[in-house]
Amino acid sequence: MGVVIENISRVDAGLVKQFAELGVATVHEAQARKGLLASYMRPIFAGRRVAGTAITVSVPAGDNWMIHVAVEQCQEGDIMVVAPTSPCSDGYFGDLLATSFMAHGIHALIIDAGIRDVAELTSMDFPVWSRCISAQGTVKETLGSVNIPIVCAYQQVHPGDLVLADDDGVVIVRRDEASRVLEKSLEREQRETEVRVRYSNGELGLDINNMRPRLAQKGLQYVSESAEE
Amino acid sequence: MGVVIENISRVDAGLVKQFAELGVATVHEAQARKGLLASYMRPIFAGRRVAGTAITVSVPAGDNWMIHVAVEQCQEGDIMVVAPTSPCSDGYFGDLLATSFMAHGIHALIIDAGIRDVAELTSMDFPVWSRCISAQGTVKETLGSVNIPIVCAYQQVHPGDLVLADDDGVVIVRRDEASRVLEKSLEREQRETEVRVRYSNGELGLDINNMRPRLAQKGLQYVSESAEE
Amino acid sequence: MGVVIENISRVDAGLVKQFAELGVATVHEAQARKGLLASYMRPIFAGRRVAGTAITVSVPAGDNWMIHVAVEQCQEGDIMVVAPTSPCSDGYFGDLLATSFMAHGIHALIIDAGIRDVAELTSMDFPVWSRCISAQGTVKETLGSVNIPIVCAYQQVHPGDLVLADDDGVVIVRRDEASRVLEKSLEREQRETEVRVRYSNGELGLDINNMRPRLAQKGLQYVSESAEE
Amino acid sequence: MGVVIENISRVDAGLVKQFAELGVATVHEAQARKGLLASYMRPIFAGRRVAGTAITVSVPAGDNWMIHVAVEQCQEGDIMVVAPTSPCSDGYFGDLLATSFMAHGIHALIIDAGIRDVAELTSMDFPVWSRCISAQGTVKETLGSVNIPIVCAYQQVHPGDLVLADDDGVVIVRRDEASRVLEKSLEREQRETEVRVRYSNGELGLDINNMRPRLAQKGLQYVSESAEE
Amino acid sequence: MGVVIENISRVDAGLVKQFAELGVATVHEAQARKGLLASYMRPIFAGRRVAGTAITVSVPAGDNWMIHVAVEQCQEGDIMVVAPTSPCSDGYFGDLLATSFMAHGIHALIIDAGIRDVAELTSMDFPVWSRCISAQGTVKETLGSVNIPIVCAYQQVHPGDLVLADDDGVVIVRRDEASRVLEKSLEREQRETEVRVRYSNGELGLDINNMRPRLAQKGLQYVSESAEE
Amino acid sequence: MGVVIENISRVDAGLVKQFAELGVATVHEAQARKGLLASYMRPIFAGRRVAGTAITVSVPAGDNWMIHVAVEQCQEGDIMVVAPTSPCSDGYFGDLLATSFMAHGIHALIIDAGIRDVAELTSMDFPVWSRCISAQGTVKETLGSVNIPIVCAYQQVHPGDLVLADDDGVVIVRRDEASRVLEKSLEREQRETEVRVRYSNGELGLDINNMRPRLAQKGLQYVSESAEE
Repeated sequence: MGVVIENISRVDAGLVKQFAELGVATVHEAQARKGLLASYMRPIFAGRRVAGTAITVSVPAGDNWMIHVAVEQCQEGDIMVVAPTSPCSDGYFGDLLATSFMAHGIHALIIDAGIRDVAELTSMDFPVWSRCISAQGTVKETLGSVNIPIVCAYQQVHPGDLVLADDDGVVIVRRDEASRVLEKSLEREQRETEVRVRYSNGELGLDINNMRPRLAQKGLQYVSESAEE
Repeated sequence: MGVVIENISRVDAGLVKQFAELGVATVHEAQARKGLLASYMRPIFAGRRVAGTAITVSVPAGDNWMIHVAVEQCQEGDIMVVAPTSPCSDGYFGDLLATSFMAHGIHALIIDAGIRDVAELTSMDFPVWSRCISAQGTVKETLGSVNIPIVCAYQQVHPGDLVLADDDGVVIVRRDEASRVLEKSLEREQRETEVRVRYSNGELGLDINNMRPRLAQKGLQYVSESAEE
Repeated sequence: MGVVIENISRVDAGLVKQFAELGVATVHEAQARKGLLASYMRPIFAGRRVAGTAITVSVPAGDNWMIHVAVEQCQEGDIMVVAPTSPCSDGYFGDLLATSFMAHGIHALIIDAGIRDVAELTSMDFPVWSRCISAQGTVKETLGSVNIPIVCAYQQVHPGDLVLADDDGVVIVRRDEASRVLEKSLEREQRETEVRVRYSNGELGLDINNMRPRLAQKGLQYVSESAEE
Repeated sequence: MGVVIENISRVDAGLVKQFAELGVATVHEAQARKGLLASYMRPIFAGRRVAGTAITVSVPAGDNWMIHVAVEQCQEGDIMVVAPTSPCSDGYFGDLLATSFMAHGIHALIIDAGIRDVAELTSMDFPVWSRCISAQGTVKETLGSVNIPIVCAYQQVHPGDLVLADDDGVVIVRRDEASRVLEKSLEREQRETEVRVRYSNGELGLDINNMRPRLAQKGLQYVSESAEE
Repeated sequence: MGVVIENISRVDAGLVKQFAELGVATVHEAQARKGLLASYMRPIFAGRRVAGTAITVSVPAGDNWMIHVAVEQCQEGDIMVVAPTSPCSDGYFGDLLATSFMAHGIHALIIDAGIRDVAELTSMDFPVWSRCISAQGTVKETLGSVNIPIVCAYQQVHPGDLVLADDDGVVIVRRDEASRVLEKSLEREQRETEVRVRYSNGELGLDINNMRPRLAQKGLQYVSESAEE
Repeated sequence: MGVVIENISRVDAGLVKQFAELGVATVHEAQARKGLLASYMRPIFAGRRVAGTAITVSVPAGDNWMIHVAVEQCQEGDIMVVAPTSPCSDGYFGDLLATSFMAHGIHALIIDAGIRDVAELTSMDFPVWSRCISAQGTVKETLGSVNIPIVCAYQQVHPGDLVLADDDGVVIVRRDEASRVLEKSLEREQRETEVRVRYSNGELGLDINNMRPRLAQKGLQYVSESAEE
């Protein structure tokens, strides 16, 4: 507690840009379904997708002091990822901090707690994924840490990791795996594009994926309704 | 487990069209408050109302294999209703399956679990009512059943039942009761139209519904604030 | 139970108008973080802010009779605040009652339970903050009370109190404290306007609020990543 | 609504007695994992196992009138299964009704709502499985129904079905399937007894169930920790 | 915030003793179903019933400083009632504070948050009703208040009010209503004793309460199962 | 996915024994409040305290295959820590696996999911901390991993870490920090023993911890009740 790690290594900025074109679900699949934050993490408004580098912040319940400390550690393209050490719904973040974040080029906030000033944040088009919305403020009394590994919404996040968020939620890609995951994501997207055409032509998943033999082997039975009764 | 009932009887298509003009709350009232799915079932985007015939799917937790099997059993105007056998938030359904659904004329998905690709589904205008949104994928390993009676979000659903969904939630009308419920719904709507005029003119529910005598009989007391203190 | 207090004292209408320009978070801070309803109370559509005077209604679970009684006690500019005596998700309120509310100049509904006809209420632009949305109707069998002090979503509400609601939630200001809280809110807003400029210029909260000495005193340590490993 | 079905058919009493020797988990497995009530249904005290025949009761939220009606329909060996038509935590049942239940030979109560007088019920050794405990009372104003099919804690229950409850929860066996399920349950118990000896001797599930070839085929890799790093 | 009210008026100690013989459900009924804390407030061990006078404590999330301040305001027979200003599950209280409470004659703790050292508290036989159990500690940084009116688990509590808690939960009786509520509770208990005999003799609630005419009037229908099909 | 790390390093067995004498709350404090599993992790029966070394298991939702794989990796004194990759309440573990665990000297199970056969596990005195209890079984179809770092109930757990669990919950101590944390825990326990005597003599925390000057400095005001009104 009470440590700020400076000068962290970050995932390559070129990679981040390419991830910004991909969906959370695609990337999560491409890295073997790791790193997805819990589904209670929802965007405060719909329709945004952002990618960036994680600045991690461990905060006490009801205390947002470390967010101020963490801003100084950020650079253009970062995303702040904040987790309280015990469950908390208080509003750690509002339009003043968002103004500060935007001035420092921070792309988004991911926080396993509450935020406030939703109407203003929406007008500013500053995207936030949070556990809830609450006008309840916080104090500035107890230290936490910046850029230590944290658990946010059930997932481990390391500073410098890639963060990708959209309407489906938030996924974390480990810094040293980002290049490989990007490649696999692009492959997956290519395959999905091809398959989408077949689905739109009315082909069945049963046939596209050749599922019928295995279904039969597992014992799936087809019965006509009249026969059943 | 592991049964697909084919050639089910469906509620009459002409009835379905007429239900599509009615609200969930109206129909729920008209059938004596039966068949309403639990309130945690929410549309992934606002503003759509759909009616259709239920294709029911019982799936294992975290396994969407049977959804592929069920598509083959659907026809134009069906709505797929999916329930896991134990609580699950995984994303069973995304834009590829939605493409398949739309190619087969399936009007909507009702699922007591998670779905993903919300941004794409919104662009495609494909409506879904679900328990949650999650990018977490599923496997295809274990059989379930199609067109058996299921319990979805606390309500019994039979294949061929009428499904009506809007921003208020989802209601199920039993196939053999659809005609009578439609009639009562239309009557109710007619009454509400008349009463709405009276409300908009400032008349009180107390008078429109002649509540004052019964309130008095139950002992309701009116006290002026000053008298009270 | 079974009491209607008439002719209540109300917070001054001039004050109410001025509060309508302020945000919930600002006012909550200005009154030392009192009176905020629990964060599960959410608007049924985004983007509205309303201020008004509380008409309080205590209702049994699943029984909306007292809402009809309460309409008669309302005047232009009131906001009805409804709390069930045990937790309930039923839909106490829909478009007919909303028509009645609008005819009587009631600005909004705050209800620690469910409501229905969301699509219609959105079209009518009638704002509601509720615990949930449910088409499940209620009965009219058991008395409750109007304009007694109630607890709604964890907060005490007295009749005549000021109610302010926006996308961040709902805050209650005691009638006799409204004037002082307004003054403090305006001061706070003024300060925030000034500070916002500094944040937008890139100044850090660390410096604007002179946090560095106290952080050092508490023992915050800065370590370079390479040094750490 | 408002119907009492009398003279229902019941699962055979001899079968019920044999089920009372079996565990909920065993029977649930033996009937292919159907009929298990949601896991939030918990016993009010530990250590009891009961079997009986279902008397089903559909009740309005906060109204226990139909429980009184249902007692008259019960006979020795019945278990009352109660479900509200919308979620409710009120205390529908206490020591007076338990006294009545015991006088009529009712073995237990299963209720997807609250109950009260826990200390007294424990002293009386009257077992209850409920959603919660609450001293909040109910009213007697609105009709429900007795011995219609209901959904209780996510599962369909028909009057006359077998109900089995223990510290693991509650399972429902359809009346016409009870004989076959009993047979399969006994077989399963027999097999488990044999396997238990092997487990207690230190044999691995991997070997008892011959899992190694299939794990290898799926691609499971064994790596020594030092090799990994 | 930051106020300690000293020398509060307390409900009469003689009354408290008599309440200690009564159940929470009985007293809640006797005062027209007011003052019951939410059902998530559970005892950390079963079988205790306590009555006492409320010392109220408003605490920040994650900060137990005010509990230390409040001990000094307590006297023999008090019960401390603690509510955080925003939802918190941290463990505010453990065996050291319990030792202090017992040394000062405090009968119990009611806290809408977490506590810890459950095993030790059970050995010490010190009763606690809490929202949850958590080893997560708190800080001592921010002021709260002692003996101001608070909302605890959805209910208003004033200092000096009577607190009664048992396995069914916690009920608050207003100081100025305690005498009248005691009287009504004793009457109710007397009636229940008489009725219990009738129930144990097999009489039905339908007859004891003369429910049949009103059920018939509401339209309850009795149908034999065979007739129904 | 699909990896088993063998021959992991384990925290020293001598340390484990000493931790078994300490409480979860004490150790959590001693390591600066790190490593506490979420408070929904509860023991299936009260009164046990266990310490051991973590064998970590990452499992798919509804699939317990990897638990069988993991048993082979265990040795006397281990505790298995299991986390599903998405939220799941199914019963992954029952009395047969418990028999196997006891035969292999596994001290306990920590699982962020459901378990079953609670009555039998209680008779066997095999301790489990779980998210819930459910008779719903699992399948054996999809690989997971053994002895990789996992997130269980919001906390990172590495194979070989120390696990300590009692009625307050579960805390994880990193292998390389165990020795230092033990030392600090013993110191803390010593201090608490001394302080407990002072508390039991009636001394106030206000004085034992010299809180009065800082409370005054923060502005705490003492007001007599009569003065206040």
